[in-house]
Amino acid sequence: MKQIVVIGLSSFGSRVVDELQLMSAEIIIIDKDRELIEKYKDVVHAAYIVDVSDENVIKKLIPKSVDAVILDLKSNLEVTILVTNYLQKMSVENIIVKAVSEKHGEILKMVGATQIIYPDLEAARRVTPLLVSDSLYNFVPISSGLVMAEIFVPSKLVGKTLIETNLRYKEGVNIVAIKKDESSEYSFFVPDYKLGEKDILLAVGEEINIKKFTDAGYVKRDRNMPGVLQRIFGTK
Amino acid sequence: MKQIVVIGLSSFGSRVVDELQLMSAEIIIIDKDRELIEKYKDVVHAAYIVDVSDENVIKKLIPKSVDAVILDLKSNLEVTILVTNYLQKMSVENIIVKAVSEKHGEILKMVGATQIIYPDLEAARRVTPLLVSDSLYNFVPISSGLVMAEIFVPSKLVGKTLIETNLRYKEGVNIVAIKKDESSEYSFFVPDYKLGEKDILLAVGEEINIKKFTDAGYVKRDRNMPGVLQRIFGTK
Repeated sequence: MKQIVVIGLSSFGSRVVDELQLMSAEIIIIDKDRELIEKYKDVVHAAYIVDVSDENVIKKLIPKSVDAVILDLKSNLEVTILVTNYLQKMSVENIIVKAVSEKHGEILKMVGATQIIYPDLEAARRVTPLLVSDSLYNFVPISSGLVMAEIFVPSKLVGKTLIETNLRYKEGVNIVAIKKDESSEYSFFVPDYKLGEKDILLAVGEEINIKKFTDAGYVKRDRNMPGVLQRIFGTK
Repeated sequence: MKQIVVIGLSSFGSRVVDELQLMSAEIIIIDKDRELIEKYKDVVHAAYIVDVSDENVIKKLIPKSVDAVILDLKSNLEVTILVTNYLQKMSVENIIVKAVSEKHGEILKMVGATQIIYPDLEAARRVTPLLVSDSLYNFVPISSGLVMAEIFVPSKLVGKTLIETNLRYKEGVNIVAIKKDESSEYSFFVPDYKLGEKDILLAVGEEINIKKFTDAGYVKRDRNMPGVLQRIFGTK
């Protein structure tokens, strides 16, 4: 069974505990807020009410054998950075930290975080394409560059078979399943199935191809690395 | 071009504006914080520094033709509820609101929100399965019940063809693509391709089947509707 420590029971941390409870895992929780700890103490393996900004506290409470530590100290940026670094010095394998901004996340990576979570950014990236395109029903980034989307059947494709549309070669869009009109389940398509007006297609492809195909009006992404880091850490 | 209003430029609202800027949309922003508005005013169609808790302000500033309003007033729960209801009375078609808790979200649905966004909950649901299973590489809920997962090849399947494994019928897990060892791209599999030890499989299936297949030790989900609503709105 995996041993997982959640430090900080803010909005994200407490949801992780909620979800972990549904699985088989040994959960340890740490927060300085007695009320939050009381809420969860009966459903976890161990619970501690302490201030984590002391390195000795972290060393004492985190088991050597821990599989992952999740850190959600809300808006306490400095303590998040310190604790992340304490965990790195203890050689914790998975240090997963919620960051409030991309700049914050960059710093956390530098001091040892193995994975940064940006819930608001993730939610914005999922929701925004749906706002500008009538063709999209659902949109989920999977990995860098790759997305999965649920797509209403474009009117020009209604009545055609997927073989005829040849979307994979023409548009770089792979249709992996079809939810047929009035069905609540996806099914794989037989090659000669004719697309219906109310079908929904489950498609996988590069983000730019999916957006182009669904008229989401995509323009090139151009993200700059935060200059603030250079000011904090020097030019290298 | 879609006309989209973002009310409140907190962490989620500002990310929505960031993402919308990359697409073709007419963006209108509203916040009472001058500094936030200044940051974005040159990249949007219109920007207003006002207090949105006044219904007349909302009526005046939101165009009748608006396609969607995104609401992110951070921790101001009461104003979020009021503004959501003003928008419903104006018959705005898409009212998308960030909620801080499931109870808050339930209330927002009651007063007119058409979609509730829970970024911390979404992020927790994506991350948690990865913590308890060594087989999962990535995990993304797509719609109720349906998830997509990137899965390391279970050792018992190495050297077999997907046809031989018959996962769709045996495990309810549909493999839709394979990322072959050292390739950075997914490709569709030919029926007689033999699974390699370092391949990653892109699978779609019911959440419970994916979790079972990947040893994520899933137990039945049992969510209670919030009792607080009964206290606020009476027993009906």
